[in-house]
Amino acid sequence: MKILYDISMTIHPGMMVWKNYEKKKVHFSVDSDFATGTVHETRISINAHTGTHIDAPLHVYENGATLDAIPAERLIGPARVVDFTNVSPSIGREHLEPLGLQPGEWLLIKTTDSFNETDTFNREFVFLNAEGAAYLAGTGISGVAIDALGIERDQPGYPTHKALFDAGILIVEGVRLKDVPEGRYTFLVAPLKLKGTDGAPARAFLLGD
Amino acid sequence: MKILYDISMTIHPGMMVWKNYEKKKVHFSVDSDFATGTVHETRISINAHTGTHIDAPLHVYENGATLDAIPAERLIGPARVVDFTNVSPSIGREHLEPLGLQPGEWLLIKTTDSFNETDTFNREFVFLNAEGAAYLAGTGISGVAIDALGIERDQPGYPTHKALFDAGILIVEGVRLKDVPEGRYTFLVAPLKLKGTDGAPARAFLLGD
Repeated sequence: MKILYDISMTIHPGMMVWKNYEKKKVHFSVDSDFATGTVHETRISINAHTGTHIDAPLHVYENGATLDAIPAERLIGPARVVDFTNVSPSIGREHLEPLGLQPGEWLLIKTTDSFNETDTFNREFVFLNAEGAAYLAGTGISGVAIDALGIERDQPGYPTHKALFDAGILIVEGVRLKDVPEGRYTFLVAPLKLKGTDGAPARAFLLGD
Repeated sequence: MKILYDISMTIHPGMMVWKNYEKKKVHFSVDSDFATGTVHETRISINAHTGTHIDAPLHVYENGATLDAIPAERLIGPARVVDFTNVSPSIGREHLEPLGLQPGEWLLIKTTDSFNETDTFNREFVFLNAEGAAYLAGTGISGVAIDALGIERDQPGYPTHKALFDAGILIVEGVRLKDVPEGRYTFLVAPLKLKGTDGAPARAFLLGD
């Protein structure tokens, strides 16, 4: 068992955040350094939906389930990385049906967003549309991960998130797949174990034997 | 491949922090909720050495290496969980030598600290002493994880940290091993991918086939 790919975004002040909103930015500060103490300790202020992260239903549903309701066992599983870099503006049923997705697996969606290595969020990112999500809800897959910071845009009421959550499908956003060929892997997503939140920043890997 | 044990501390305001210092506490706030927006998003303010976390040499060495210098491949590997719950006040060479540690493996140190399920830090925690660390430096092991929030206490100049870092041995603190029997596992530690910091909070698992 080894790590084949680290598919996590690097977290730093100035990194890309949703719609480039100032209030969503990352801040680092210093709790202790060698001038004020005997150790160096950084403090991080971070929105739970920064960089590579997992969503919980509370993100879009008032009184929705929180992150701690996700069993650890769900955070690892067989996965398929699928190249959708030639699809735009959105991924729908017609793109997903031919894949023959199997219950229990993860779908990792690779779009052109994986190739955006700037610190600027692209508002025109390719997304999973509501019809595509409704289709996935019937497949029994375990989760969907996408490279963009969001799995949908410009869909009032967040129907993509809701169709997936209603089916018990996990949602991971902000994975980096530029260097990852299409194929089958073991996916592991490791969100911080936050209590009662709407999501959590995560480290994510693709593992091989 | 499955997750056998989630050995991460739960992160929340009020959780145990080093020496119960106010300035090291965790804070949650709200960047958006259903009164002010259309989604719920929590912001977390957290010291990099909170809960289950990994240290980088910068933590104790001015101009030391930062977290991003740790290759992802080092974050997973064979591990031994060893029960030291009957040892106090510190773990030394005499406790470690009989283990016959092998190059490349992780040592996970289980002390009475794993059974402290309160939110109060125990200043008398059992630690790895300087002599024990100097012994480990010669074994070629990959890393050491301990359940306490620190791997040493009351040793001016941090000789335990320094002996391990000088030997290229990784240090993880704050794992929870109460439910884990002694034995051999695959250990995976997934720190947030922070740029330029002295450490990072992490999710940590013990995996089985």
